Amino acid sequence: MSQATRGYAAQSPTSPLGLFHFVRRDPRPEDVVIDILYSGVCHSDLHTARNDWGGTVYPTVPGHEIIGRVRAVGSAVQRVQPGDMVGVGCMVDSCQACRACAKGWEQYCERGATYTYNSVDRVDGSPTQGGYAEQIVVRQEFVLKVPGGLDLAGAAPLLCAGITTWSPLRHWKVGPGSQVAVVGLGGLGHMALKLAKALGAEVTLFSRSPGKEADARRLGADRVVISTDKAQMKAVRGQFELILDTVPYAHDLNPYTPTLATGGTLVLVGFLGSQEPPLNTSALVVGRKALAGSLIGGIAETQEMLDFCGQHGITADTEVIALEDINAAYERMLRSDVKYRFVIDMARFAGQG
Amino acid sequence: MSQATRGYAAQSPTSPLGLFHFVRRDPRPEDVVIDILYSGVCHSDLHTARNDWGGTVYPTVPGHEIIGRVRAVGSAVQRVQPGDMVGVGCMVDSCQACRACAKGWEQYCERGATYTYNSVDRVDGSPTQGGYAEQIVVRQEFVLKVPGGLDLAGAAPLLCAGITTWSPLRHWKVGPGSQVAVVGLGGLGHMALKLAKALGAEVTLFSRSPGKEADARRLGADRVVISTDKAQMKAVRGQFELILDTVPYAHDLNPYTPTLATGGTLVLVGFLGSQEPPLNTSALVVGRKALAGSLIGGIAETQEMLDFCGQHGITADTEVIALEDINAAYERMLRSDVKYRFVIDMARFAGQG
Ligand SMILES: [Zn+2]
Ligand SMILES: [Zn+2]
Ligand SMILES: [Zn+2]
Ligand SMILES: [Zn+2]
Repeated sequence: MSQATRGYAAQSPTSPLGLFHFVRRDPRPEDVVIDILYSGVCHSDLHTARNDWGGTVYPTVPGHEIIGRVRAVGSAVQRVQPGDMVGVGCMVDSCQACRACAKGWEQYCERGATYTYNSVDRVDGSPTQGGYAEQIVVRQEFVLKVPGGLDLAGAAPLLCAGITTWSPLRHWKVGPGSQVAVVGLGGLGHMALKLAKALGAEVTLFSRSPGKEADARRLGADRVVISTDKAQMKAVRGQFELILDTVPYAHDLNPYTPTLATGGTLVLVGFLGSQEPPLNTSALVVGRKALAGSLIGGIAETQEMLDFCGQHGITADTEVIALEDINAAYERMLRSDVKYRFVIDMARFAGQG
Repeated sequence: MSQATRGYAAQSPTSPLGLFHFVRRDPRPEDVVIDILYSGVCHSDLHTARNDWGGTVYPTVPGHEIIGRVRAVGSAVQRVQPGDMVGVGCMVDSCQACRACAKGWEQYCERGATYTYNSVDRVDGSPTQGGYAEQIVVRQEFVLKVPGGLDLAGAAPLLCAGITTWSPLRHWKVGPGSQVAVVGLGGLGHMALKLAKALGAEVTLFSRSPGKEADARRLGADRVVISTDKAQMKAVRGQFELILDTVPYAHDLNPYTPTLATGGTLVLVGFLGSQEPPLNTSALVVGRKALAGSLIGGIAETQEMLDFCGQHGITADTEVIALEDINAAYERMLRSDVKYRFVIDMARFAGQG
């Protein structure tokens, strides 16, 4: 029983996304068939649709912040059953055997994780297609359980924006009293504020412009530091054990490194590319500081994050749209005109066009 | 009884070092008066003498890899007694009270450590002068004990080159079976090979040119990888938990970051400055890798390193010179023409001129 599905796909780097009829694979014994209810809209979706990073295979259906209800399960599935509320994030498979996978770091699978879209199924070689669609079929190990009581639209962005900020917060052992700073207040940044605060940290937002103070405090910041104000920056020299930099484009890190405490780490989660203007390494050497990167998070870690959000009532701040609104939403995202994540409500999907 | 001392000082950025008569301070109750036997010659000495980093106050007597014999001690000194063989490294004081000092990280003292030369004494405000001299007076907490049985000339470089490589090896928990690579085979690099090997690591030397194989293996490398050979570099992708980069000038790090294992760290110990060509951060994000820096090491850690070297019979490979040879030695250092550290033998000091 293969699954005829409708979604929205990009057909080329320059065409807007539009209606796309396709077929999900027949469920294998370990597969879960999911009716998609909500799909968050991540910057990676836009970059892939437009081939900004190269390597996009068309047609491509983006979307890797998926909340849905289990429709059916394969014969070997134990983790979930029909009717369960589940999530799917950025990955739908990995080798499950390498050193990284053995540690629960499927995102760093040495043979390469299978991504939710624009990737290739490990079994049948077919292209993977994401969450801007009515259904998805995913191997059970990559299906997350959504705790009860969470707003489902708001839970969708936890699957990428949530885990991308949670993983470094946990890896660098943020807890009560930790001094954490966040650079950038977008989809990732607003989750970083919420999660760091709920973990007990004292949280600072670095912002380039004033005017975000009230929002930042509501989201969990104890303090906003204007990064272009030298006096404010000097006042937080040596302060932070961890800085989570969520900015999705190249920018100067040199104002931030002196605000790290001895042994502190600045973690990039937003930008991959050439670091310009160049990093001054003196700030790293004098104080044993580090510049690190982090990519999404592992599956067990994602479940841990969802459970934590369930306990603390944490979801993303969303603007809910219909799938038909996606192209307009992309334009607004490019202007940072969203507080703080678009989420597609598949119940509004007309499926015409 | 203040100490009339002779040494060699730079009088300006462009003058060669020459004979300099000066007076060491009267020992305070907690001070140790040391007759200097050997003084290693570090690149920092040369950079300070020539004001390459700015901030040099003249006249300046370089030298922070000091081995000597205790001549006299102040009334409160418990750690050593006259006749003891001792070492002095890059620091002679720190605040002893801040969070960093409390952790034994005097090198990262939040109020600034007092360096062995070109610094200012915390008590009397006088300029500190280093080890290219007959005597030095140092607060007891910064006097290290030299284990018996070590070649004393070879032990001198342990005080800077040794601890600078030891500290990151220990901080990043290198032990039996660790995969460690070293970039650069100079004073720091050759110590890194010896120490990493003695800690039980499997050690690789990255070299830009062939011809260092035999020397590298003798010093402790299990393998030499030619960093300009793409096939060799590809063969070690994802290999190293720690890369110690000892190169003292700006250079491209992008060939090395892909050879880090997931979660691995490249530690800069040689170069402070603008990282050019720019770092590509993708290699950090995909694999949670880090670029870090590390500065010398703490005092307890330095004693630990000296004791370890005593147990394992580790000293630097040296070329022993007279103080009068220092200007010629600097010229050879600039051409990397030394295997692997010049050490001044003060017994050869004529003191004329
Ligand atoms: Zn995403
Ligand atoms: Zn794997
Ligand atoms: Zn040195
Ligand atoms: Zn201190």
